[in-house]
Amino acid sequence: MEESSIEESVASVVEEAKEVQDAVSAHISKSSSDEEPLRQRVRGVNSRIHSLRSSLDSLLSNKLIPPSLADKLDEDLQRARCIIVDGDASSLLPGHAQGSFLRMFLGPINVRASRKDVQLKVKEEYNSYRDRTALLFLLFPAILLILRSWVWAGCLPTFPVQMYQAWLLFLYTGLALRENILRVNGSDIRPWWIYHHYCAMIMALVSLTWDIKGQPDCAKKQRGVQLFLQWAMMQGVAMLLQNRYQRQRLYTRIALGKAKRMDVVWGETAGVDGQLWLLCPILFTLQGFEAYVGLLLLKTAVVGVVSEWQVIFCGVLLVLMAVGNFANTVQILMVKSRF
Amino acid sequence: MEESSIEESVASVVEEAKEVQDAVSAHISKSSSDEEPLRQRVRGVNSRIHSLRSSLDSLLSNKLIPPSLADKLDEDLQRARCIIVDGDASSLLPGHAQGSFLRMFLGPINVRASRKDVQLKVKEEYNSYRDRTALLFLLFPAILLILRSWVWAGCLPTFPVQMYQAWLLFLYTGLALRENILRVNGSDIRPWWIYHHYCAMIMALVSLTWDIKGQPDCAKKQRGVQLFLQWAMMQGVAMLLQNRYQRQRLYTRIALGKAKRMDVVWGETAGVDGQLWLLCPILFTLQGFEAYVGLLLLKTAVVGVVSEWQVIFCGVLLVLMAVGNFANTVQILMVKSRF
Ligand SMILES: CC(C)(COP(=O)(O)OP(=O)(O)OC[C@H]1O[C@@H](n2cnc3c(N)ncnc32)[C@H](O)[C@@H]1OP(=O)(O)O)[C@@H](O)C(=O)NCCC(=O)NCCS
Ligand SMILES: CC(C)(COP(=O)(O)OP(=O)(O)OC[C@H]1O[C@@H](n2cnc3c(N)ncnc32)[C@H](O)[C@@H]1OP(=O)(O)O)[C@@H](O)C(=O)NCCC(=O)NCCS
Repeated sequence: MEESSIEESVASVVEEAKEVQDAVSAHISKSSSDEEPLRQRVRGVNSRIHSLRSSLDSLLSNKLIPPSLADKLDEDLQRARCIIVDGDASSLLPGHAQGSFLRMFLGPINVRASRKDVQLKVKEEYNSYRDRTALLFLLFPAILLILRSWVWAGCLPTFPVQMYQAWLLFLYTGLALRENILRVNGSDIRPWWIYHHYCAMIMALVSLTWDIKGQPDCAKKQRGVQLFLQWAMMQGVAMLLQNRYQRQRLYTRIALGKAKRMDVVWGETAGVDGQLWLLCPILFTLQGFEAYVGLLLLKTAVVGVVSEWQVIFCGVLLVLMAVGNFANTVQILMVKSRF
Repeated sequence: MEESSIEESVASVVEEAKEVQDAVSAHISKSSSDEEPLRQRVRGVNSRIHSLRSSLDSLLSNKLIPPSLADKLDEDLQRARCIIVDGDASSLLPGHAQGSFLRMFLGPINVRASRKDVQLKVKEEYNSYRDRTALLFLLFPAILLILRSWVWAGCLPTFPVQMYQAWLLFLYTGLALRENILRVNGSDIRPWWIYHHYCAMIMALVSLTWDIKGQPDCAKKQRGVQLFLQWAMMQGVAMLLQNRYQRQRLYTRIALGKAKRMDVVWGETAGVDGQLWLLCPILFTLQGFEAYVGLLLLKTAVVGVVSEWQVIFCGVLLVLMAVGNFANTVQILMVKSRF
């Protein structure tokens, strides 16, 4: 290339850079100003659905409308809500604000997906992440407990247990971050399930500092660790069952999301909601076991076999988690049975 | 409300929900199809800038162009690049792909900001996060070390040290996540500085499982922990200095980003780049100290005062980090002095 031609090329590329930059700026501001009226409309429709639902409720309770008609109208309103909430329009609805947990770890970046299919993909991936971890949740402590009685002669070595606890910490952090992201993307997940994972994170962290004592007499000294591992296995069972239910629930919603555009009748969730009543006794049993493990930990600390603060702390945390889980599960059941 | 009027309202809200959903879908697909040609143009300009720069280099090395002209053209090209990279157009350039660290913790959510001002805000916030942590980095270990000699009679208690280590783990995780996010948003941060924080995360995790021995003779047994705290304080000094430099660099770039649209002459970075030569001797000293602490840790392990695997592991990691930091700092200096 020659002197004069490179001078020209450089000048033209500078010009072009300016032009393209202006074009992009114009495109961005046009696109966001086009979006504004749509945003208003979506929010308007959403609030009209809400107010119609409460009018319907009051009409029904005052017996001003026949129940069969109320059912039909309720179904229609649910369909309208589904169109707004499960379609592209949902990206224009206000999501839950980004909480301080996300801000603490990620800074002020926005994690809201603007397209509904991306949001569903995130949810899908969360479910399969949970599936994978639930299996490990069963296997990892099970292997430790089996090796303990068959190979390690009743005495857990420190290193594998600490590996496991570090893995737990990593896992719960990932779950808590993902659930926060789902919430920003419009999921209705109750805050408690997220707090539950914060508690589990703290517990994993505390258990890492827990000094695992060796011989002599380690069956007694390691009672706390052993209980902890057993509880973790139960947690794996709970997660597997819960995932099965939740995934089916998601599929039903996606299918309905497609169906509703073709005006197919609503009401297929009944099958999935029935499963809930099967799941709940198992969940309650597990929650009882969680509280029991917590109390046993407290007992070993009080009786004085193991007197570290970590044991007391984990015991209290487990009892709190069990109570919270129970209360929230009962609340969900109450809300669901009202409909 | 009456029976008939609520029927009508419900029917109309269902209709409106469908309409608004269609309008939103249409808006989204129109906006992304409008974006496509812009994306092509931005990428075209970007690659033309790159090829012109190499033509310019070869013309200059073959002495086919006077150096003063080459300087001017180089400045023009830098300005063009600045317009593309620091303006809204940059959102259409391919960023670094989202690495597996982010996918592991966050799932498949996209953390790329589409507007340049948001990207700058993220960068700003990262800098001020680092400022805040650098102060704590200095204070936290300093307080521990002071209390150790004045209050705790030469013997660090376990709990505050573990608190500190847990805080380190949390901090490094946050830094690693944020740096990954910056990279996705087009920052040129070298991968090593991110790996460096992965290493620091692992080190904090390992040090949490490190059994801090008490009396008798704890001055000797706690030598490892003490060295670790001293190194952390040095790290705080390094961060503070680095932040000062990096923030000034960012401000200069933002100012230039505004200036360049008004065609002000380029070349103000010289002042900031000069600071780099002041910063580097300090950084090298700190890196030397890092390696020294690592070697001392290895020595205490070999001599046999403290024989836990954690001490050896942290020692090796520190030496590796020091070598990597040194190599990368030297490379950056070499790249910068070429211009
Ligand atoms: C009781 C239970 C099955 C109800 O699930 P559900 O029918 O999906 O509950 P909701 O209708 O309130 O769900 C609302 C949202 O929260 C999510 N969600 C509910 N429970 C959740 C949980 N435990 N973890 C994560 N997400 C949950 C749902 O996926 C749904 O998300 P979406 O709005 O994006 O579709 C479920 O909460 C559960 O399994 N809880 C018990 C967990 C437990 O106790 N574990 C420990 C045992 S030791
Ligand atoms: C040497 C040094 C000052 C060079 O900084 P620089 O001039 O910004 O380097 P570069 O031009 O290569 O920077 C490219 C990008 O990486 C970022 N970056 C550089 N070093 C970074 C670091 N250590 N951490 C985080 N980000 C860094 C810059 O902010 C810049 O980001 P941008 O593209 O978004 O503007 C810096 O890398 C440094 O301080 N390194 C030493 C750190 C160290 O050794 N610490 C431990 C001591 S014990």
